[in-house]
Amino acid sequence: MTYKDKAIKLFSLNSNRELAEEISKNSGIPLGKISSKQFSDGEIQINIEESVRGFDIFIIQSTSYPVNTHLWELLIMIDACKRASANTINIVMPYYGYARQDRTASTREPITAKLVANMLTNAGADRILTLDLHAAQVQGFFDIPADNLFTVPLFADYYRQNDLVGDNVVVVAPKNSGIKRARSLAEYLDSPIAIVDYPDDDQTRENGYIIGDVKGKSVILIDDILNTGKTFSSAALIAKEAGAKEIYAVSSHGLFTPGAAARLDIAGITEVLVTNSVKTETPKPSAIKYISAAPLLAHAIINIYENRPVSPLFQYSKTSD
Amino acid sequence: MTYKDKAIKLFSLNSNRELAEEISKNSGIPLGKISSKQFSDGEIQINIEESVRGFDIFIIQSTSYPVNTHLWELLIMIDACKRASANTINIVMPYYGYARQDRTASTREPITAKLVANMLTNAGADRILTLDLHAAQVQGFFDIPADNLFTVPLFADYYRQNDLVGDNVVVVAPKNSGIKRARSLAEYLDSPIAIVDYPDDDQTRENGYIIGDVKGKSVILIDDILNTGKTFSSAALIAKEAGAKEIYAVSSHGLFTPGAAARLDIAGITEVLVTNSVKTETPKPSAIKYISAAPLLAHAIINIYENRPVSPLFQYSKTSD
Amino acid sequence: MTYKDKAIKLFSLNSNRELAEEISKNSGIPLGKISSKQFSDGEIQINIEESVRGFDIFIIQSTSYPVNTHLWELLIMIDACKRASANTINIVMPYYGYARQDRTASTREPITAKLVANMLTNAGADRILTLDLHAAQVQGFFDIPADNLFTVPLFADYYRQNDLVGDNVVVVAPKNSGIKRARSLAEYLDSPIAIVDYPDDDQTRENGYIIGDVKGKSVILIDDILNTGKTFSSAALIAKEAGAKEIYAVSSHGLFTPGAAARLDIAGITEVLVTNSVKTETPKPSAIKYISAAPLLAHAIINIYENRPVSPLFQYSKTSD
Amino acid sequence: MTYKDKAIKLFSLNSNRELAEEISKNSGIPLGKISSKQFSDGEIQINIEESVRGFDIFIIQSTSYPVNTHLWELLIMIDACKRASANTINIVMPYYGYARQDRTASTREPITAKLVANMLTNAGADRILTLDLHAAQVQGFFDIPADNLFTVPLFADYYRQNDLVGDNVVVVAPKNSGIKRARSLAEYLDSPIAIVDYPDDDQTRENGYIIGDVKGKSVILIDDILNTGKTFSSAALIAKEAGAKEIYAVSSHGLFTPGAAARLDIAGITEVLVTNSVKTETPKPSAIKYISAAPLLAHAIINIYENRPVSPLFQYSKTSD
Amino acid sequence: MTYKDKAIKLFSLNSNRELAEEISKNSGIPLGKISSKQFSDGEIQINIEESVRGFDIFIIQSTSYPVNTHLWELLIMIDACKRASANTINIVMPYYGYARQDRTASTREPITAKLVANMLTNAGADRILTLDLHAAQVQGFFDIPADNLFTVPLFADYYRQNDLVGDNVVVVAPKNSGIKRARSLAEYLDSPIAIVDYPDDDQTRENGYIIGDVKGKSVILIDDILNTGKTFSSAALIAKEAGAKEIYAVSSHGLFTPGAAARLDIAGITEVLVTNSVKTETPKPSAIKYISAAPLLAHAIINIYENRPVSPLFQYSKTSD
Amino acid sequence: MTYKDKAIKLFSLNSNRELAEEISKNSGIPLGKISSKQFSDGEIQINIEESVRGFDIFIIQSTSYPVNTHLWELLIMIDACKRASANTINIVMPYYGYARQDRTASTREPITAKLVANMLTNAGADRILTLDLHAAQVQGFFDIPADNLFTVPLFADYYRQNDLVGDNVVVVAPKNSGIKRARSLAEYLDSPIAIVDYPDDDQTRENGYIIGDVKGKSVILIDDILNTGKTFSSAALIAKEAGAKEIYAVSSHGLFTPGAAARLDIAGITEVLVTNSVKTETPKPSAIKYISAAPLLAHAIINIYENRPVSPLFQYSKTSD
Repeated sequence: MTYKDKAIKLFSLNSNRELAEEISKNSGIPLGKISSKQFSDGEIQINIEESVRGFDIFIIQSTSYPVNTHLWELLIMIDACKRASANTINIVMPYYGYARQDRTASTREPITAKLVANMLTNAGADRILTLDLHAAQVQGFFDIPADNLFTVPLFADYYRQNDLVGDNVVVVAPKNSGIKRARSLAEYLDSPIAIVDYPDDDQTRENGYIIGDVKGKSVILIDDILNTGKTFSSAALIAKEAGAKEIYAVSSHGLFTPGAAARLDIAGITEVLVTNSVKTETPKPSAIKYISAAPLLAHAIINIYENRPVSPLFQYSKTSD
Repeated sequence: MTYKDKAIKLFSLNSNRELAEEISKNSGIPLGKISSKQFSDGEIQINIEESVRGFDIFIIQSTSYPVNTHLWELLIMIDACKRASANTINIVMPYYGYARQDRTASTREPITAKLVANMLTNAGADRILTLDLHAAQVQGFFDIPADNLFTVPLFADYYRQNDLVGDNVVVVAPKNSGIKRARSLAEYLDSPIAIVDYPDDDQTRENGYIIGDVKGKSVILIDDILNTGKTFSSAALIAKEAGAKEIYAVSSHGLFTPGAAARLDIAGITEVLVTNSVKTETPKPSAIKYISAAPLLAHAIINIYENRPVSPLFQYSKTSD
Repeated sequence: MTYKDKAIKLFSLNSNRELAEEISKNSGIPLGKISSKQFSDGEIQINIEESVRGFDIFIIQSTSYPVNTHLWELLIMIDACKRASANTINIVMPYYGYARQDRTASTREPITAKLVANMLTNAGADRILTLDLHAAQVQGFFDIPADNLFTVPLFADYYRQNDLVGDNVVVVAPKNSGIKRARSLAEYLDSPIAIVDYPDDDQTRENGYIIGDVKGKSVILIDDILNTGKTFSSAALIAKEAGAKEIYAVSSHGLFTPGAAARLDIAGITEVLVTNSVKTETPKPSAIKYISAAPLLAHAIINIYENRPVSPLFQYSKTSD
Repeated sequence: MTYKDKAIKLFSLNSNRELAEEISKNSGIPLGKISSKQFSDGEIQINIEESVRGFDIFIIQSTSYPVNTHLWELLIMIDACKRASANTINIVMPYYGYARQDRTASTREPITAKLVANMLTNAGADRILTLDLHAAQVQGFFDIPADNLFTVPLFADYYRQNDLVGDNVVVVAPKNSGIKRARSLAEYLDSPIAIVDYPDDDQTRENGYIIGDVKGKSVILIDDILNTGKTFSSAALIAKEAGAKEIYAVSSHGLFTPGAAARLDIAGITEVLVTNSVKTETPKPSAIKYISAAPLLAHAIINIYENRPVSPLFQYSKTSD
Repeated sequence: MTYKDKAIKLFSLNSNRELAEEISKNSGIPLGKISSKQFSDGEIQINIEESVRGFDIFIIQSTSYPVNTHLWELLIMIDACKRASANTINIVMPYYGYARQDRTASTREPITAKLVANMLTNAGADRILTLDLHAAQVQGFFDIPADNLFTVPLFADYYRQNDLVGDNVVVVAPKNSGIKRARSLAEYLDSPIAIVDYPDDDQTRENGYIIGDVKGKSVILIDDILNTGKTFSSAALIAKEAGAKEIYAVSSHGLFTPGAAARLDIAGITEVLVTNSVKTETPKPSAIKYISAAPLLAHAIINIYENRPVSPLFQYSKTSD
Repeated sequence: MTYKDKAIKLFSLNSNRELAEEISKNSGIPLGKISSKQFSDGEIQINIEESVRGFDIFIIQSTSYPVNTHLWELLIMIDACKRASANTINIVMPYYGYARQDRTASTREPITAKLVANMLTNAGADRILTLDLHAAQVQGFFDIPADNLFTVPLFADYYRQNDLVGDNVVVVAPKNSGIKRARSLAEYLDSPIAIVDYPDDDQTRENGYIIGDVKGKSVILIDDILNTGKTFSSAALIAKEAGAKEIYAVSSHGLFTPGAAARLDIAGITEVLVTNSVKTETPKPSAIKYISAAPLLAHAIINIYENRPVSPLFQYSKTSD
């Protein structure tokens, strides 16, 4: 089936054009023509070079580094589509920047993840599609439909194909807030879990130790965002000291800020698995392995456009692999 | 200091009048005169029997059982205050009903906790004060100021006074999602933590086991909402099998739905500690112990009214006890 | 004609499933699969068990006793449909609870009927269809399209078929605020009208007397809501004392709160006619007669969906019977 | 007490400057300096000639003929006050134009009274004060505080001073929709009521007759809006034919559209009583009698500003006269 | 192609029925049946005499004299369409009244052009189509799509056909704020420009002089709104004194307030060219020439309805004439 | 007078701390303590280090390069202040980024200046204070009070002190859209004006020439934003060719993007005058002269806080120098 003649258009902004092209290929919907550039004073100018009047528009943008520029590019694109009479404006945001600022941890803090939701909605977004949000509650920051796709089934599928399954594996939450993701992956793999805990919470990462048993096991560390690499490298060290045989690390979003690659290389992690939700120019660890989220995102876009439920995308059958 | 002559008024609705009276006593602000009754067809009629024009109104209502009635009573009161020209309308909601419906766990689910936030704001609320929200992210469901008071310092203070402190104690999360509360209390008590884990997640509570070491220790199980008592009684059993010496249980909100008391009595829990955030007519476990949240709430109300920061309320000094 | 394959779905909530099934039969639109239940703490959980993405959804719910629960069930269903990407959300509310709280009768009163309108709209409703609103002005409480269907033509049709027509009949408003309904029915029946008046207004129902002549006539008392039965039983007594031959009573919405049945039985009313807008478990008067509003509602739903005017539904031709 | 130095300012627009000046005198609040004129193309230009920054602004405007111009003048003044940083913007609208378009009487009709409410609120009004609204439900069209002052006590006071009281008087609703006002005045005067009814409703005023007894009595016809005079002159004729001794007519708002004066003069009405809510250049009936609403409005303004309840204004003590 | 069977309806309100009929003819879309009249008290009553449910409605109304009445007629029509369930409500406003009140020129001024935009949007408009707005920034006063059609290409086409082109012509801005329009027309005609300047700005039109060279040339004065005629007559005099051979004047909107015709006749302007955007009963100058905007507007309506870009309408090719 | 004890707080974000400090000194209001930093992934974290509860907060931020980061920093600060219960949130934005994107110049363009206004308002801003907006109409993009301060009086004062006044001076608009600013400055200086015009409009700056006479005169070029310096350098060249004696250039906002300094140095401009509204690290032309806008801004802040009119700040008296 081809989507060339349908009332749907797909546009890519500047954060991750490779991913957008892959989604385009997977969905059969060509990428619309657009020019988006920055002037010397930093202001963004967008020209949509084909009509959007009456179309359902899907805009692909990860709000990764530089997050503020990518957010404004997205808001300006929404404004342009709204004024040009798009039928609906749908945001595909594989990586949701500022997602961790989702509550008032101490007094007088902003809740920037909610601010982002408000700005997108107020600018004119009709729907958002995300990938493994930092906290599922961020869906509730929106009053427009917000579909959040899970990455754990993707990862589970990959590890099962590589025979990392069952009692020889322990899925480890590298900090206590990651326990839900660890539990979820463990269920797919029929493996036990363990947690890295820090007595003074994870603000100061000192005196860490592991709760649970990893001796002689293959450990899979799981987190949603791989940023500085400190969480993984610290957890890898602790797991090894606790007798782990080898260490795998998996994360939905690979930001790899400067220094992360070196930190992960030193930590002796066998493989660092991430999706291609984020494109970054920084160095990557040598053991990097990318798994594409494009088929999943393309499938969701088609289902949304055709008014079919997105729910099957949430499911995963152990017997299918 | 007396608040009789100030431009602030405190009203209690029907969910927990005892708590409201205690807050009134602690704050020195008398409870305003109000009549709120239900007709034979279930409709609520509210008559505010003193002027609210120009006053800062604080309305105390826990949205516990029957939650739908308590919510409408609150919405109607907000509407009445708004039309009667209150200066500001401040909600004091020690227990926030529907808080657990805070995300789309499976497809086509509502996010009722957000719906509640939207309804309160749209009716005319200017601010909300809560006590130990199920998930801190619910604060972000509001665009009005939302202050969430913590109960862990209250509990820590109580346990330290009872010498439940240090290495003889293990704070246990009775399900993996409770690990953050366990970690927080453990830091106050200088104790280690452990987690009760269920291989098929906590939907079917089978084959549970404990991660971490509780042998010979006093265990404190901690959760935010004590509803059916199943989580605590199941965790108590698992902890005992793992060699725990004695079991304490602490929860911010004691709903005690029918059957909970019996379940907890059987589980052999030494003491069940809850705040008085919820008033319920159902049976309580014999080992029940109430700790009052009224001083904390009264203090917060005064600080809000006097434009002093609420932040000191968040803090807790180990050396102060 | 069948509506199975159209982009419309009809759902029934828990207030009046019989009426919903009748509407479904009359319209040829099957009822969608849904589970809506209350937990032991009173919280409602809704699971929509088929896709609503892109559909025009019609939700049938009378907000009768217990009104607060039925209202929240409706709000939660609206939220679920909105987040699940329904195309439009249409409320079919045969009985509109809180409709009588439509103005500030004395100081510091809420206007709860407006609050209900605001909550429905803010939750995401796109349109509402009602049946004989207490005051037509409640339509203006909405900024979404609000169609109000009249029941007087149904009643007139019924009475004409039973030969209650012309000068032998007097249509009587049982309290002065009901005069518009009495006038409307009287015009359909070519009968005169009369009014029951209370010198101290109808708050204290004492010293009532009739204005107009009912001696030797068949009296039809008409009101919109039959709640406690006091208005009708008091008016029946007054009409009899004024020489009425027999008394009929007709009301759009039969709430029959406890005691109403006995009160009406004692009053010696020949027949109490109501629509099936409200389902209630309370006792009914022995002279009860139900007339179904389902064909009218089904017709309106089809017309709305097909973008045909709802206006013919307002009309009634005397010559057609 | 003088209000010269308070943070309140009173402005009069062009519909009824005499009333505004009387309100100013009664309240002790001087009228602010303002110029509001129309250009040759009909556009209105407003210049507020003193600072409003931080003040509570009360704008006096009856939206009587020419209603569209008076409404825009009011909206523009609200916009100017909002942009000039008024603290609050309070509308004093003794006559609310378009009030009768308050429901969808037939299909595809606007609800213009709600549209007016929406426009005022959206422009920036914070509160509205009205005088005897056509239907009390219009209060519910607003979500800002809306105080509606009653004129019946004013009229009752006047008639009692003129000994029109007790059984020699019958208060007559000149059409069936006016029965609530007739009942209210009758209670103040301890008099009975009657109704003028038209078999084909009051759209075609034919074959009218009176329900109730007026023979040999002084009749007081009461309505809220005196527009063309047809309702009163037709009712006067019917009352006389039914044996009334003399006819009084009272109405809150005297619009007196062209022809009304002649019609009322011919009808032989002893006295036509109206408030000064509306200023009009058209001829008045010879038996006209004005009663000022300025003291009532001034009192309400002061009470609102001083955060005292407006409720005593609603009350009326029979023993006080 | 005929538009009779499409889901689009075109309605004309009372400001300029001739233009609406011409648009109807040009587009092939018949004008819908509607009755809009004013009562004796100035209130407008609208009856839409055919169904609009589910249709895309285009309402044609210039908000020219009497502007306030025309604006309310438009707002009421929008409200009626919204409540009658129109699919979309599109405003075609060839002349936008109050457009010149678009900023706060001195302190405490309203921004009435924004107020108009807010009122239209809040009433329920989904889109607006305008013709040569006074300032293009007024588009930004809307958050709904706002398409502004240019008249300069129409005028350029006309003048080229009349050989007013090249170096023999000077396009003159009759006041300095008109320079952008002069520049735009000059480019189409390959002519130079000049400006009439007033040392004390154009508030007091004294001591005016021309910047640029018009000696022996045909001068085309261009402005957007021709109101009192003072700007053109004053500029014509100055241009003649500077040696202009003959004077043409062109303006998008001809209001011609009383006195304008005489003023322009005296000024000796060879031809006064305007579009038919405004219908007015006032006298016109003898050299008046109307050019119809109906084809342009009809074309835009069709393109909007068919989801084709409106952009080609903006363009103009010199080689096409 | 000191503002230390008042309920006002002034905060500086990171775009122009020097200007904020100068405003603080001029107003006597100390700068509040705040930490605002960027993480390695570009996300901004703000900690307000003193209470803002109940205070009127003024936030100083020019949205100059990098504009997207400065805008998000501002939005996040607004969110933090709102959630921390500030009484009002006032934005002081000396330079308004994206101001030139204020209309849809060609099809499918965003109106980013309006988007910025919407985002600020939606985030929670209560008021904005700007300095010489690119187009005054941008004020109308806001529905909150928007005060725009003029810089021309500052510049006029400076030039009069330097004897650049009267007929020896010609104020020149360097492109035709700048004519209003030129006219305004010329009036203050009692000088004539001229315009630089480009036959193909100012998009391609070719074949430019001057309209008006500058021979032997001192020319002052005036513009609002000095960005690349191309407008000024091109105009300077044209003015010199037309015989100008010397060239001054003045602009409210000096962005000086890379290359601007060199361009201006080569153009032989005697002095380039700008305010300190923008801080930039790029090279400046050697003839740069800064004039501080801090006293003007400080004065406006005080007047706003004290509810005094801001209007005197707009005025300028020629006789005062």
